[in-house]
Amino acid sequence: MIEKDKVVLIFSGGMDSTTLLYDLIRRDKEIYALSINYNQRHKKELEYAKKTTKKLNINHKIIDLSVLSDILQGSALTTPNISVPEGHYEDENMKMTVVPNRNMIFLSLAIGYAISIKAKKIYYGAHKGDHAIYPDCRPEFIEAIKKVAQLVDYEPIEIYAPYLYIDKGDIAKIGKKLNVDYSLTWTCYKGKDKACGVCGSCTERLEAFKKAGIMTNIAENQRF
Amino acid sequence: MIEKDKVVLIFSGGMDSTTLLYDLIRRDKEIYALSINYNQRHKKELEYAKKTTKKLNINHKIIDLSVLSDILQGSALTTPNISVPEGHYEDENMKMTVVPNRNMIFLSLAIGYAISIKAKKIYYGAHKGDHAIYPDCRPEFIEAIKKVAQLVDYEPIEIYAPYLYIDKGDIAKIGKKLNVDYSLTWTCYKGKDKACGVCGSCTERLEAFKKAGIMTNIAENQRF
Repeated sequence: MIEKDKVVLIFSGGMDSTTLLYDLIRRDKEIYALSINYNQRHKKELEYAKKTTKKLNINHKIIDLSVLSDILQGSALTTPNISVPEGHYEDENMKMTVVPNRNMIFLSLAIGYAISIKAKKIYYGAHKGDHAIYPDCRPEFIEAIKKVAQLVDYEPIEIYAPYLYIDKGDIAKIGKKLNVDYSLTWTCYKGKDKACGVCGSCTERLEAFKKAGIMTNIAENQRF
Repeated sequence: MIEKDKVVLIFSGGMDSTTLLYDLIRRDKEIYALSINYNQRHKKELEYAKKTTKKLNINHKIIDLSVLSDILQGSALTTPNISVPEGHYEDENMKMTVVPNRNMIFLSLAIGYAISIKAKKIYYGAHKGDHAIYPDCRPEFIEAIKKVAQLVDYEPIEIYAPYLYIDKGDIAKIGKKLNVDYSLTWTCYKGKDKACGVCGSCTERLEAFKKAGIMTNIAENQRF
């Protein structure tokens, strides 16, 4: 019997990482999903993450690192008195949503977890639309962190960001083919009962659905 | 008035980072010490860390990330049923004390904290004696992580490991000159009431004191 390829997926419960999860299932990987509570305003994404892994019967750890908001300050996503900006990801004010060094922290935790369970591969869903504002989603960052991952342990760990050069619309197209259940994903940064439809994250989600020709009723499942 | 250079120090409460703290005070830095509870067996090092920063009146955050032991398994330092090995750091069995990806995780947290408080520099106390067993204390790891730190944010963050090419004995010599109060440091991996004197960490500590000609009564303060 050939053993399946063991991988750790950084899994937020949003569109991108959920599509990646389906993509990895299709590629027949043995998946260990890792979600992190960093006291994000939209921590309800974690409930959606759980719904998806439960439905698909995937190993899933949700780690409560909400104390991190004590040292990771100044972002609208973790600081209650800073408002979530509206508009597009390319807009200057969207910088307010950057959580200091979030991806490096998540990747380092995923690497630690991978070493623990003897997995050699990490997947994460950074995409082209993130490049404009998030420094830690840019190709040069990924290249640098890949080199680090070769050196952290006795054996190298590989990091994959397969959506790095496509945008959220292209991801939704992949998701459509894979029959991703987007009603079990959460995107809105505001994290209220209903998605706001106007924050940067909602704007990108709705545009992606439109680009992929995904019916609005899926967006409606998220209670717009 | 010239503003002091703001730095984040990864501060365990052990000999190396405590010496580095005194060293940074001498260099007139504005220091933000960061200590992490990762459910280490010897978490009493954190009490010692606190004693030192209190005595020296240094900004200090201790973050409780003890839940990390859920994903960082397989180390004698975090897994109760794995014994702490005795002997030298170069010994093969000392690999049991490696906590998966600990330094990358700590550095990524320190970088996030630095970005939050608008510091541009991180210091950590990796030294030559660590190279033999800890992959994430080796010069090639440090070089790779330095490159990542240039890219994580809109402005580069610098990482310094000034003791990287000297050993613990040399660090103790620096500490002797700086009048470091080693009675307020904790080293023993076993983390019991008294230091064991025989684990890898104790062995190195005692040899370092000897090399630096530091009187045994300082070791005795640690209740050997």
